[in-house]
Amino acid sequence: MIGKIVASIGQVRKQAGVSSDIIEVVAVGVPGPLDTARGVIRFAPNLGWRDVPLKRILEEQISMKVILDNDANLAALGEHIFGVGRGQENMVYVTVSTGVGGGLILGGRLYRGSSDGAGEIGHITVQPEGPLCTCGARGCLEAVSSGTAIAREARCLVERGGGQNILAQAGGNPAGISAAVVAAAAAGGDPEAGSIISLAARFLGIGVASIINLLNPGMVVLGGGVMEIGEPIWRHVRLEVEARALETSRTRAQIVPAGLGRRAGVLGAVALALALALQQK
Amino acid sequence: MIGKIVASIGQVRKQAGVSSDIIEVVAVGVPGPLDTARGVIRFAPNLGWRDVPLKRILEEQISMKVILDNDANLAALGEHIFGVGRGQENMVYVTVSTGVGGGLILGGRLYRGSSDGAGEIGHITVQPEGPLCTCGARGCLEAVSSGTAIAREARCLVERGGGQNILAQAGGNPAGISAAVVAAAAAGGDPEAGSIISLAARFLGIGVASIINLLNPGMVVLGGGVMEIGEPIWRHVRLEVEARALETSRTRAQIVPAGLGRRAGVLGAVALALALALQQK
Repeated sequence: MIGKIVASIGQVRKQAGVSSDIIEVVAVGVPGPLDTARGVIRFAPNLGWRDVPLKRILEEQISMKVILDNDANLAALGEHIFGVGRGQENMVYVTVSTGVGGGLILGGRLYRGSSDGAGEIGHITVQPEGPLCTCGARGCLEAVSSGTAIAREARCLVERGGGQNILAQAGGNPAGISAAVVAAAAAGGDPEAGSIISLAARFLGIGVASIINLLNPGMVVLGGGVMEIGEPIWRHVRLEVEARALETSRTRAQIVPAGLGRRAGVLGAVALALALALQQK
Repeated sequence: MIGKIVASIGQVRKQAGVSSDIIEVVAVGVPGPLDTARGVIRFAPNLGWRDVPLKRILEEQISMKVILDNDANLAALGEHIFGVGRGQENMVYVTVSTGVGGGLILGGRLYRGSSDGAGEIGHITVQPEGPLCTCGARGCLEAVSSGTAIAREARCLVERGGGQNILAQAGGNPAGISAAVVAAAAAGGDPEAGSIISLAARFLGIGVASIINLLNPGMVVLGGGVMEIGEPIWRHVRLEVEARALETSRTRAQIVPAGLGRRAGVLGAVALALALALQQK
């Protein structure tokens, strides 16, 4: 994995036609939890990594200064500096795809918390006795609103003998049921699929309303594959926010789609590198 | 009301033996929502006030500079500057009494949000289909964990024919049932009272865990009358945080009782006035 990172850095550098001595810093977005000050990935279950000093390893191999930051934090920073959140003093970024992640821009700066753990929006509890989350708790936002959760609910429905339109949409194969399949069935008018989508969206709206009441942001940016399902998701998010967020904060908070898509993270890394380079002048 | 405020300012000034011309600023803690920049209380349902320009009115009457801030925010600032939160860069303050309020210290400063609405911890949703809150939403933290909520649950129990030990503790009068009465019955070993207390505490713990996952603070300060019920509340708060907060953030966050009691708000006002006076030097 690290070999591939090093190779791709070299490749990009050659394509751009720049020598390594004029590159001041390489910013790398990584999954948390991590220690940004020491540049160590503390735990990355999907990679099977624990306490990997990626900053030091990369710096040795590429002879350039390296900084690490959380990938969702960098996506938030990307939207703040280059995307829909430009000029927003207080902005909450939420990405809803396989999981639910996020990042916070507070007082015009990326807010990392006391041990680089802030912004874990996917692990707000929205249904205390709800489905088990990968983190071990029950009813986290991620466990009820992610693409994974939408697909799981549809498969459970099929196992109980329902969801036949969803199953047909997946070519009759339960293992082929994804959030996109459920969304397609819902778009075709299937009420069971519609219910699964609207419930996931309602829980997302509940989470967003809680964040608005707690942080009173000027903008909430929602991105990720699940948001691309479109109006069936957005409508229910807005309804819950309308019902649950206090007037003062609700009327101040624009709720908008992310503008940078998959490029948010890498553009956030560019923003972080730029900030560091300019700081050193 | 304003006449009484003016009279008490004059009285305190005389007791302290200082003339008004050496007082640089008077900081006033008020219930939100408010506009701190203009010094206007936008809405105070308990006082029946709407859009009261308290800053301007007081300044005219006392001929001193006046600043307003949210009372729960000032209590948070008080604990941060003079209380248990001294030196904490990121601190969450929660007060659980008749209602549930709070304030956020982020990056060493009071965080007010984009329209002075931040810190409304009482209106995080912890039980989506739960009891109706005074704000109009269902299952807000305030609707399930406040002293008012604890008393309401006990009265409902009595109405359903249960809660006889609680009723006896209230001298046989259902209207006399308060959170303190329920706590006393629980302390006497009544399991029904114990269940009400532990459920309120569990929801509080769920809210605190969500805040820890979102903000990764170094400290969470819990105050107010309900926390003074003691270990029956604290135990269940800790259990839910243990079960729901992510390791990185959970192990970083001290959860401690407030240190200043009812003086937190006024000491926060002192801190705010001091900060403003020093800034002007």
